[in-house]
Amino acid sequence: MGALVEDHYNAELENGGVGLGDCIDLGVEDEPETLAIEESVRILLQGLGEDVNREGLRKTPFRVAKALREGTKGYRQKVNDVVHGALFPEVGLGAGVGHAGGAGGLVIVRDIDLFSYCESCLLPFHIKCHVGYVPSEQRVVGLSKLSRVADIFAKRLQNPQHLSDQVCAALQQAFNPTGVALLLQCSHIHIHHGWVKVLVTSGSGVFEDEKANVWTDFLGLLRLRGICSDTKDIERPFCPSRFSCKTLPPLNSVMTNAVGSILLSLGEDPFRKELLGTPSRFVKWFTDFKNSDLEMKKPFGGFVRCGSDSEPEMVSELNLPFWSQCEHHLLPFYGVVHIGYLCGSNGGGGAKSTLQSIVHFHGYKLQVQERLTRQIAESVASATGEEDVIVVVEASHTCMISRGIEKVGSNTATVAVLGRFSREPTMRMQFLQSIPNSCALKSKPHPQPHLRPPANTNIFKVRRASNSAATNTLRR
Amino acid sequence: MGALVEDHYNAELENGGVGLGDCIDLGVEDEPETLAIEESVRILLQGLGEDVNREGLRKTPFRVAKALREGTKGYRQKVNDVVHGALFPEVGLGAGVGHAGGAGGLVIVRDIDLFSYCESCLLPFHIKCHVGYVPSEQRVVGLSKLSRVADIFAKRLQNPQHLSDQVCAALQQAFNPTGVALLLQCSHIHIHHGWVKVLVTSGSGVFEDEKANVWTDFLGLLRLRGICSDTKDIERPFCPSRFSCKTLPPLNSVMTNAVGSILLSLGEDPFRKELLGTPSRFVKWFTDFKNSDLEMKKPFGGFVRCGSDSEPEMVSELNLPFWSQCEHHLLPFYGVVHIGYLCGSNGGGGAKSTLQSIVHFHGYKLQVQERLTRQIAESVASATGEEDVIVVVEASHTCMISRGIEKVGSNTATVAVLGRFSREPTMRMQFLQSIPNSCALKSKPHPQPHLRPPANTNIFKVRRASNSAATNTLRR
Repeated sequence: MGALVEDHYNAELENGGVGLGDCIDLGVEDEPETLAIEESVRILLQGLGEDVNREGLRKTPFRVAKALREGTKGYRQKVNDVVHGALFPEVGLGAGVGHAGGAGGLVIVRDIDLFSYCESCLLPFHIKCHVGYVPSEQRVVGLSKLSRVADIFAKRLQNPQHLSDQVCAALQQAFNPTGVALLLQCSHIHIHHGWVKVLVTSGSGVFEDEKANVWTDFLGLLRLRGICSDTKDIERPFCPSRFSCKTLPPLNSVMTNAVGSILLSLGEDPFRKELLGTPSRFVKWFTDFKNSDLEMKKPFGGFVRCGSDSEPEMVSELNLPFWSQCEHHLLPFYGVVHIGYLCGSNGGGGAKSTLQSIVHFHGYKLQVQERLTRQIAESVASATGEEDVIVVVEASHTCMISRGIEKVGSNTATVAVLGRFSREPTMRMQFLQSIPNSCALKSKPHPQPHLRPPANTNIFKVRRASNSAATNTLRR
Repeated sequence: MGALVEDHYNAELENGGVGLGDCIDLGVEDEPETLAIEESVRILLQGLGEDVNREGLRKTPFRVAKALREGTKGYRQKVNDVVHGALFPEVGLGAGVGHAGGAGGLVIVRDIDLFSYCESCLLPFHIKCHVGYVPSEQRVVGLSKLSRVADIFAKRLQNPQHLSDQVCAALQQAFNPTGVALLLQCSHIHIHHGWVKVLVTSGSGVFEDEKANVWTDFLGLLRLRGICSDTKDIERPFCPSRFSCKTLPPLNSVMTNAVGSILLSLGEDPFRKELLGTPSRFVKWFTDFKNSDLEMKKPFGGFVRCGSDSEPEMVSELNLPFWSQCEHHLLPFYGVVHIGYLCGSNGGGGAKSTLQSIVHFHGYKLQVQERLTRQIAESVASATGEEDVIVVVEASHTCMISRGIEKVGSNTATVAVLGRFSREPTMRMQFLQSIPNSCALKSKPHPQPHLRPPANTNIFKVRRASNSAATNTLRR
């Protein structure tokens, strides 16, 4: 490990000059639209019963407003600014010989990661964007322009088909190629329905005809990267909140009005057809999460106390799914929880459903991952009556990927250790080694459709203790 | 496919207002440092024998200057601006009970993708950054701040160990936690040596002792994501240009002075020990690529003409590696070329080495992928004497991932088709289907160390035709 040169950074930290990279902060922060969104977010938090002045939440309205404004900056961007000067002369093959270069040779950019906000519920959704075009007039486009133009339209309130159509039209308009093809693979996160995946396409010019041979070429080149175009699903709406609650329960109109006001501040028309139900759907989703102060009404049961007459065993329950909501950004984070504890060898053992209930109880709140981890550990100790507990939470944070940060593959891990797990490193290591590498998180950000908690879990309903088949028991 | 709403975008394109998202452009473009870099890049291009006024290159100095300034914006950013207000109170577990929450529970962010410029040769290198810390004083850090601080130091001229030490020291300084751990997996691109991978670590506070148990916990949590810490390689320098050319040939001093001037404009000290050889190493690498006008001195040989008396076979040579240099950004792009052509069934067939030579010849130039694809197709037609040729180039562009765009997983495909391949869609499809999905590109941006052309390929030395074992022959 290298030596640390702290003095140098002392000076750096104290100077605190204005960072050029933060110029978006400087631009958006003080604008009236941003301040108006902050006020609306405060109203939403109060509607949830939260104290907007507690330290973890104090700056949340500001963070949410900033993220929303940055995530919708496409409204304030012009395609012309991005594409200016991005056409390069490039001779093609001789007439009649074939297609390539600046004349007729297909050009494709695959696997562009984008994020949009869903116009139906205001949650972010992930897009794998694949774009192709056929050059014309011996001119090719700077490759990065394709993703830059796509990002302008992604950074708006969207639905997949509109996004695809808009990017396609804008590229056709801007570069006038022989044709443009778009294929988007979109994944929408939703706590009650796991992941919804939709595949949409758009075409202009020679791609206007869905049966054209050039589509076969385009899809053939996508297949080289394992991109499959066969999963087109147009039967049900993309946004899960559209099919989960066709008739909304009566909602807090102060809260729905606050969301309407946010739409207005983002530069949208809240009365546009697609946005009419958005405030209600957002509030419905938002209030599914509980106030962070909510206490357990009765303790979790379902465990047989372990005997203490023999060397204890380590019992572990791995890969319990969870969903939660980051209280700093009001965006979902989700992943898996691994729980281990020591238990007398003659009895006890985990009731998997109780452990999952504990995870859900602490998840369905405004949270931070560190607190969630600690609370689960404390509840497991209390429910099992054991004092030796370890909890590992592995999570993907939407706030790490959908805002300006866009660290798409990044993920977090937190640990809480009680009793012997805090005193004995070898026990921690033994537990960590019992977790398979191929955990569900590995496939993020292309999430498994099956990684989701069961719908409508009743967190207070527990079963009698029995070691479920999936419970691992390791003898120490 | 959805309908396109072109009128709306007409208006948008014509307005051409100032995009907020482009504010970095507005800031950096007109600064004297940027203009000075542009001038130096012009000198470098002239040193290569290029016409700096031809259309493909005219704006290259501007693009290179802008990318370099954006890629080193960390010099102009302050840690304090980023971390301001990012500490949140979070109670921990009771004293003596264990560690979690705001006291002692390890917190880790894994798989943060970063890019830096190598201080030894000015090429970008990729970093998978994993960072952990142990909270103290019941305060936790906003998770995104860890990657933001890391990015400030990544956006400078760096080497892996310095980068790791600097991020570690800055986080320790800024948040004063119980300890900070960094593990970086760095991959350096180099045309003659493939990929060089190095793993470095840094620790402060409780992580200062490399043997501390907390390191075991940290590495154990990384292992859950398949991150292996066993590949530490400190025997040879990270930058391949440091071990490939210890004694440099005499170089064009006008060009090396131009690189020195770039270092100065970036805010660096060209006489800093680590930078002393950088101009020479950069010019050495840069002049390995040829002027784009370079013509073949003699035609490629090595093929037996096919007979035309029977139904031709499709001969294909897949996954030929290539390296090239994007003339728009002077950054490497690399990947694989798939070549197919029709050949009389009684004779002929590809000399793999000749096809690879054709690929190298056209690759080792200032290029654009579209032109490279066309030139390879034309050369294959000329060398084989066949008029039915298809060429697919699949590439990763450093310029798509190391600049502001940072579309890490994105990649491009281009096609050139001659003769029957341009007229018969089923033949194109047959060829595309012969390419296995699991192409070498799939693992980008964590490149295979073996995806590289042989060193010092003599592009004019060819062997007699013989179907190599790797050549696929498909009967039509």
